[in-house]
Amino acid sequence: MRTRYHQELAELGTSLTQLCDLSATLIGHATRALLDADLELAEQVISDYGRVTALSAAAEERAISLLALQQPVAGDLRSIVSCIRCIGDVERMGALAVHVAKIVRERHPEHVLPAGFEGEFAEMGRIAVELAGNAKTVVGSGDPEKAAGLREQDDVMDGMHRRLFAALLDRGWKHGAGAAVDLALLGRFYERFADHAVEIGRRVVFETTGTLPPEQEVGTY
Amino acid sequence: MRTRYHQELAELGTSLTQLCDLSATLIGHATRALLDADLELAEQVISDYGRVTALSAAAEERAISLLALQQPVAGDLRSIVSCIRCIGDVERMGALAVHVAKIVRERHPEHVLPAGFEGEFAEMGRIAVELAGNAKTVVGSGDPEKAAGLREQDDVMDGMHRRLFAALLDRGWKHGAGAAVDLALLGRFYERFADHAVEIGRRVVFETTGTLPPEQEVGTY
Repeated sequence: MRTRYHQELAELGTSLTQLCDLSATLIGHATRALLDADLELAEQVISDYGRVTALSAAAEERAISLLALQQPVAGDLRSIVSCIRCIGDVERMGALAVHVAKIVRERHPEHVLPAGFEGEFAEMGRIAVELAGNAKTVVGSGDPEKAAGLREQDDVMDGMHRRLFAALLDRGWKHGAGAAVDLALLGRFYERFADHAVEIGRRVVFETTGTLPPEQEVGTY
Repeated sequence: MRTRYHQELAELGTSLTQLCDLSATLIGHATRALLDADLELAEQVISDYGRVTALSAAAEERAISLLALQQPVAGDLRSIVSCIRCIGDVERMGALAVHVAKIVRERHPEHVLPAGFEGEFAEMGRIAVELAGNAKTVVGSGDPEKAAGLREQDDVMDGMHRRLFAALLDRGWKHGAGAAVDLALLGRFYERFADHAVEIGRRVVFETTGTLPPEQEVGTY
């Protein structure tokens, strides 16, 4: 009975790491679609979102069945409750990749990014993929130090996001209001993606230590 | 023992309805701060967010202690798991009100909204307050029909959001890129606020019927 239980608990963890992997793939593809104005890849991201919702519904059912059948206590219980919250975060990460892909589709065959912004978004995309990968590692290892590392990467993302907004709100902005709106939203999608990865790390620390690290500050944008 | 248990379960529901109330208050205040360029009220929203995080942490601890001590099964278990997910949604609703308030603070003493947009945002604010109030009713009653009503209000919000974006992306837009960025983000904050209220309704249906209604579609913006 205990063996079966620990196997099911491990499987719940596996579902969550699979969701992290999937969100890394989706934001990676969405970024490439954005940089190349690649409609086909954008459509793929949009249709792949069905895998996110299916996987997250299955993970939640697994958590409920663990709670119902095994009646876990103490550490295992916290771990399952953390998983339930993390499922919500990683689901949103997938949805944010879809938001990026939908802007690409909306503007196709035009490129969304004005010339000169490709490098910035390639970098935001790279950090997002890395954050999802590190969230996966944290979920697998439960290591509070690795979780703290997520915050450092998020700080880099926040800095890029702030600089992007400074450019958009500058009086010298010369790409028009439409492009500014698209870039503001894209910037926000990447920044929120990062926030959710950090939130997963915060939950893992909670799970390991029983104490929630302070909330992330709510930014201006 | 059972009496104590049902009392604690009821208290968990009360925590969630209090969070809905608080998010209604915050988005209502944030909207008034936006319409009146009222810095003091914006600051109040920002500092009131501490009550959201405190209340949501307490609600989550209550859920964990219910799961640990009472080992509920079947309907009660689903209800507690739904609560855990809803706490996340209503926390975000509070954070979105703070986002609105922070834009007001950032632009003060200027008004964020260009002339002619007050009515639109007053209406989006009104619907947001109503949605939070109705989410509270749904949490209290568990009524799937009332939960479906949330979706109808959300459709109205989505329509306003789409019309706002059409105006922002129109070549005739004459308020500059900075105002377009602010309005795009504000529009998104209200629309996301509504989505979270709908998500709470979706969870309540899950709790009542054991089946999750289909996910909301991920929009373009």
